[in-house]
Amino acid sequence: MASLELEEILKPLIANPHVLGVLVANKEGSVIKTTLDAVITKLYADKLTKYLEMTQKMIQEIDEPDAPQKNELTFLRIRSKKHEIMISPDVTEHKYMLMVLQNPERKTESGKDRI
Amino acid sequence: MASLELEEILKPLIANPHVLGVLVANKEGSVIKTTLDAVITKLYADKLTKYLEMTQKMIQEIDEPDAPQKNELTFLRIRSKKHEIMISPDVTEHKYMLMVLQNPERKTESGKDRI
Repeated sequence: MASLELEEILKPLIANPHVLGVLVANKEGSVIKTTLDAVITKLYADKLTKYLEMTQKMIQEIDEPDAPQKNELTFLRIRSKKHEIMISPDVTEHKYMLMVLQNPERKTESGKDRI
Repeated sequence: MASLELEEILKPLIANPHVLGVLVANKEGSVIKTTLDAVITKLYADKLTKYLEMTQKMIQEIDEPDAPQKNELTFLRIRSKKHEIMISPDVTEHKYMLMVLQNPERKTESGKDRI
């Protein structure tokens, strides 16, 4: 059962008409909350948690070797022809992965960005 | 020597005060144009072209298996504590990778997003 804090975060996202789906998973890829169907949820949770790990690794590989403070990923936006995936890597104190799947046509009628 | 088309694309990016560096490389990681120093250029060109390839692969792995048209990456934004990396994977007819390194504090004084 997703915590109250998480529900508060998810409510406006789920209500947004341009959001196609929301997925929350832990570092190991176990699903905490999803609005996607079961097949897509399993596929995305598996592939995106691994991809997130690769991204964190790449970020540190391109960091200064003797940097006093390690660099950390804070947000990821992956736009493709079919959709746009946004990932926050450390949501709530559990450091969950929050993924939002959105329509790539981001402009609303008034020209404002969706998310 | 970078083409005229590429120079036109790069000019406003290089002139932007919040841009820390610009790098153009081909799919194999060979550098076409850079404003970064030699060490960082080599490191970024190598790591980011490989990362781009992994991202393209992941995008297709999460696509519907029998999709009539393969999905394609169009833009990537990787924000971390130290910087923000934006990547366009297919710039000019040569399909170069264009990477822009920007200050993660994106808000200008007037509150407008930088790029």
